[in-house]
Amino acid sequence: MSLISQEVPAFDTRVPAYLQRLERAMDALLPPAGTDPDRLHQAMRYACDGGKHLRALMVYATGETLGVAPECLDPAACAVELIHAYSLVHDDLPGMDNDDLRRGRPTVHKAFDIATAILVGDALQTLAFEALANAGAIDAEQKVRMIRSLAHASGSLGMVGGQAVDMASENLTLNIGQLESLHARKTGALILVTCQLAGIAARAPEQVRHALDRYGRCIGLAFQIQDDVLDQIADTATLGKTAGKDQVQNKSTFPSLLGLEQAQHRANALFDEARDAARSISGDAEPLLWLADHIQQRDH
Amino acid sequence: MSLISQEVPAFDTRVPAYLQRLERAMDALLPPAGTDPDRLHQAMRYACDGGKHLRALMVYATGETLGVAPECLDPAACAVELIHAYSLVHDDLPGMDNDDLRRGRPTVHKAFDIATAILVGDALQTLAFEALANAGAIDAEQKVRMIRSLAHASGSLGMVGGQAVDMASENLTLNIGQLESLHARKTGALILVTCQLAGIAARAPEQVRHALDRYGRCIGLAFQIQDDVLDQIADTATLGKTAGKDQVQNKSTFPSLLGLEQAQHRANALFDEARDAARSISGDAEPLLWLADHIQQRDH
Repeated sequence: MSLISQEVPAFDTRVPAYLQRLERAMDALLPPAGTDPDRLHQAMRYACDGGKHLRALMVYATGETLGVAPECLDPAACAVELIHAYSLVHDDLPGMDNDDLRRGRPTVHKAFDIATAILVGDALQTLAFEALANAGAIDAEQKVRMIRSLAHASGSLGMVGGQAVDMASENLTLNIGQLESLHARKTGALILVTCQLAGIAARAPEQVRHALDRYGRCIGLAFQIQDDVLDQIADTATLGKTAGKDQVQNKSTFPSLLGLEQAQHRANALFDEARDAARSISGDAEPLLWLADHIQQRDH
Repeated sequence: MSLISQEVPAFDTRVPAYLQRLERAMDALLPPAGTDPDRLHQAMRYACDGGKHLRALMVYATGETLGVAPECLDPAACAVELIHAYSLVHDDLPGMDNDDLRRGRPTVHKAFDIATAILVGDALQTLAFEALANAGAIDAEQKVRMIRSLAHASGSLGMVGGQAVDMASENLTLNIGQLESLHARKTGALILVTCQLAGIAARAPEQVRHALDRYGRCIGLAFQIQDDVLDQIADTATLGKTAGKDQVQNKSTFPSLLGLEQAQHRANALFDEARDAARSISGDAEPLLWLADHIQQRDH
């Protein structure tokens, strides 16, 4: 208790252990690839393979900042990754964004078939809620609050609604307010809820919950601006998904509305605001500060 | 208390009130059609419109038999109808069964578009779990048990898995065991869980839960055999969906494996067994007996 200068290793050194936890927890949740119907279960595992797992890391980083034991965070970390994976599988379908490449490999409907991809997305969504309902280390009231938050963030008023607006906005020029509203739902809501789920696990008081919301909102929007910038300046090999798609689909993006330099400037200001919010939560918000830096520096 | 011969009106007379409860609860759950994104919310309501609501009635009939207050059953009744509606929207997609007609009207992807239909299904599934998490009249432990049961019944080991097996079985001849296993998942699991959810609301003891499982399994399988029979003998106008599809898609059905008469005989035996199970639950299982009769007599 008196060792106030006690050396705590940086979050960076703990990331591999968190990713290993996630991998084990996901492996335990997903039925083995040989389980009947085996093609469906193979495809579910294929859809969850790879990726940066930023959303799971946000759960762990927020939880660590709030002093939550990792085993209370695993179900939430898995649930957000499962929702994210399902949304990518469905967004990539021919009836939606029609993309062939994801995480550097063929999309699920290319590697398997369209029917399987639809069912994989459906089953991964179900599994996200099942993971929270089956969580061992958290009590029933917390599970219910987590399920409520995740459902709200990912449903028609959140992620799915954002995707619907995005589809309807092709070939339209949005203003910056409309674009921010779209992305607050399409990508922002799920990023925000990672912080909220960890807050629920921590039984965080209201003031902390407000600061977590501010951190999560800033990171979510900054992340999307960056995504638009990377879509324009990076190549397909680096991204692991088709680059330059926004322009082909004639979508409004932050660089198309603000210019590339201003868009990058806006993202950087949001990362700074996120760091401010993190410092207001705790004198030792190093995991959240690390995460803001880590996301800010990504090239894909 | 002493009026043991008190006249209880038959369940039949209470069905309209239960359906009205369901309609009101669904209306409160679904965002208004004008809510942004309005096209998505219109389509979600379109997808939930109509239908026989047999699954919701099973929740209410089981709950009434076990003495549960209707307000404790509404969230489960809505949740099973939402899961059922989402599964129909996705099953009808061109990449799946490719059907133009459902409940006597154009399917969602015909009335709207494919992207909207994919997102409608996704959002309806989310809403099913949100409905249970937000339920007012049941405690957190019961909500968690309901969410767990519904997720298991509808995921890759239940309904979605059954649909995957069904897609993979086109042009194959199944044996009767394989066909029953397919349908126990594709339609049976969701029908079974209606009884289980009401059992959770009632905190039913183990013996009752076993009898409910037997009732639900028999009804589920009998229902599907009937579906196969009706697909063969009824016309499209009566069914409200394309008749004769099984033969066109070269699917194994109960009539194709057993013959029409034997299939009907098997369904009737299962309805009898369901009534036996109902009587073992309570001396006054009239709602469950009514429901078995009602389903047995349906012509669409």
